[in-house]
Parts: sequence; structure tokens; C-alpha cells
Amino acid sequence: MRLGVLGTGRVGRTLSEAMAQRGNDVTMGARDPSAVSGREADGELFEVWLRRHDGVRVASFADAAANGEMVFNATAGAASLDALHAAGEQSLRGKILVDVANPLDLSGGVPPTLTVANTDSLAEQIQRAFPQTRVVKALNTVNAAVMVNPAAVGQGDHDLFVCGDDGESKAAVKVILRDWFGWRTIHDLGGIDGARAMEMYLALWIRLMRSTGSASFNVKVVS
Amino acid sequence: MRLGVLGTGRVGRTLSEAMAQRGNDVTMGARDPSAVSGREADGELFEVWLRRHDGVRVASFADAAANGEMVFNATAGAASLDALHAAGEQSLRGKILVDVANPLDLSGGVPPTLTVANTDSLAEQIQRAFPQTRVVKALNTVNAAVMVNPAAVGQGDHDLFVCGDDGESKAAVKVILRDWFGWRTIHDLGGIDGARAMEMYLALWIRLMRSTGSASFNVKVVS
Repeated sequence: MRLGVLGTGRVGRTLSEAMAQRGNDVTMGARDPSAVSGREADGELFEVWLRRHDGVRVASFADAAANGEMVFNATAGAASLDALHAAGEQSLRGKILVDVANPLDLSGGVPPTLTVANTDSLAEQIQRAFPQTRVVKALNTVNAAVMVNPAAVGQGDHDLFVCGDDGESKAAVKVILRDWFGWRTIHDLGGIDGARAMEMYLALWIRLMRSTGSASFNVKVVS
Repeated sequence: MRLGVLGTGRVGRTLSEAMAQRGNDVTMGARDPSAVSGREADGELFEVWLRRHDGVRVASFADAAANGEMVFNATAGAASLDALHAAGEQSLRGKILVDVANPLDLSGGVPPTLTVANTDSLAEQIQRAFPQTRVVKALNTVNAAVMVNPAAVGQGDHDLFVCGDDGESKAAVKVILRDWFGWRTIHDLGGIDGARAMEMYLALWIRLMRSTGSASFNVKVVS
């Protein structure tokens, strides 16, 4: 499958690596692709990281979105709308956009607050700005390493959430989450406004990371 | 122990019943105690409910707070500050106030939003309004029946959260949660601003209740 991954940070790299390893053709999108190669990526030069990863290339936001049959938004939440507008409405039209971003506002220090919450969410803002794109919120509730390898935490016995207005798109994303990454339990929170819940959960995630001292954790719904 | 429980709704009644059964002397606080007796309470008249519960009486917010060595806020979140002002600063001074309330705003229909979120929380509002009271946020993340009987869900293997500015007060509340109610794992989220996380989690709780069809659930942190 041809995939576009917007964002070249840790989340974008982790998703791209995992999806390329599963035989997909991944184009990462960056604001300025020429500037990315000299950046640091997990302790090495990004261009070295890139050479080590067959099936992953870097292009502009627009090219990455255009090349993808499905697109992942792995940009910083506060910059996501700008990145998606740079990608362009035409390149995203009719496609599933998996929104992995969290609208963290770090301007007031730590712990961060959210740039949008409670009566709206980043995913809803994106869905309103791109009405012809099928936005599915997923994966934003766990650390990048856990996203693609839930087995790394508690033998994989913990849960993921998903929401979006289009049922078929959610079903397609759930298949990817299960078959490519190994997620077993995925709770469907309904329409895209369920993203309020998934993004507001970050306030708890951040404080649990501080209290446990690790980002390698998740929650399991017990009933 | 003499306890004040502000609020005569389901949460207030459930907490009062459970704590009276464990030998405590509980005074429930109501805005208008004389009006409470004729109300419905879990399918019977409140006054009948009250006669069945030794060790529980109903009084004004002020009397309930004054009689309690420790006070529980089990009022509706949107009305909590009014209820606490009616209880009075003197009656709450120097005491632990366990804030169980959620600041749900139902004015826009369901699912509700929060009256305060993200950069502030109900518990912080209460702590600022009553600086001589030691506010501890707890129990707001589960349904009333689960609060006092975690074993009713998943053999009790799920987690609670607590936060507050005063460490000794949090320690005292944790003892109560463990010894009276049976909570095993309680995550300390730090100062009272951790209440933002505990209250914002409600957005997820509400949607999980809708997707699972039951309020008898909770989350467990897996690492």
C-alpha cells in the first residue's frame, strides 16, 4: 500500500519504519524536505536513518499526501492544520486521514495544556477544514514505540480507541491497527467528536508518565 | 469517625451508606434538608431510605460540614462552589475535603462538556476559594457503585487516581480508599492541578459508558 506520513519527528519515523517493514511504500512529508536530512533522528543523522530504511522516502507535505492512498497526520498538533493546508485539499480528498496528533500547548511550560479541548478538538477542526477527507482519530493515546508494538507493554493486554464519522474508514483503520501493529482491543468512541475524549485523555497520560517515570504504559478498560 | 457528605444524590447516598456501614457517623448535607425527605431515592422515598440507614442523618450544608472531621463533596460539579460557600469557610477550615464532583455541563445536551477544563479544574477552583481547606480529588473517575466496591468490576484489578497539594491529606484519603472501600492501586497525580487530568478523563468515561452500554467499568494502568 502507498502511504503518506506527514511529520518527520519520532512519531512519523516510528510509524513509517513499522509500515515500511510490513511491505508498504511510505512517503514521509516535511515542510522543507531539503532541510530534514541534516537533522538529528534518534541519535543519528536523518539522512543516515533514511538510508537504513528501505521503502521510506521524504518529500513535501503535498507530495507525501498525493502519493498516499491513506495518509497519517503525525505532525505536532499545534502545527497540524498548517501542515494539512500545505498538503492541500486536493491531495487529501476522498482519502482516509488517520489523525495521530495531540494539540499540545507548551507555551505555558510543563505539564502542557491543549490548544483546543472540551467543546472542540483538533480532529474536529481538521474534519471541518477538509470535509471531503475521512478523518479517523487513532493512536494518539500512546507513546510512539507502543503505537506500533503494543506487546512491549503488559503482553499487549491494553486498549486503543478510535473515532470518526465514517464507519467504513474506521473499519479499515482497525484492520491496520490489528494486522500491522497487533492491537487486540479497540474501542469505537463514535463520531469524530469522540476525539475530544481521546485528546483530553492526554492530561492524564502526561501526569501518569510523570508519576510512573516512563512513557511505556497504557490503559486497559476493565468491566 | 464523624463525616460530612455534601449532596444527597446517588453519589452522596452511596458514599454515606458505605461509610456508615463501616461504623462512621455520617451527616449528609442538603441545600434544604426539609425538602429532601419527600424526594425519590433509588426507587423509594428518601425518608424511607434514611430510616433504613443507621448512622446517617440529613442536615444543612453548614451543619454537615461542621459535624464532619472530614468532608466529602458529592454535589453536582456545576453547583459545588455554591454548596461549599453555603457550608461556610469556617466549617471547612483546616479539614480534608474529598472532592468527588465532576463539573459536567449538560446545558448543551449529551454528551455533556465540562464547565471548566484544560487550564483549570473544579478542584482547583475549590482550593482557591477555600485556601485553609485541604482539597483532595478522588473517586470522580468511577460510577458511585464502583467507588465503594471496586471488587464489583474485574475482581477489583483496576485503578484509582488521587491528587492534592497536601501530602498528609492525600495519605489519609488513600488509607480510607484502601481500608474502607478496597482500592488496591491508587496513582498519585501530584498537586491539585492533577484534577484537570481526572476531570478531563470524564470525556472518555462518558463515551466508554455509551460504547460499552454500562457504567460498571474502570481503567487499569498497564506498564
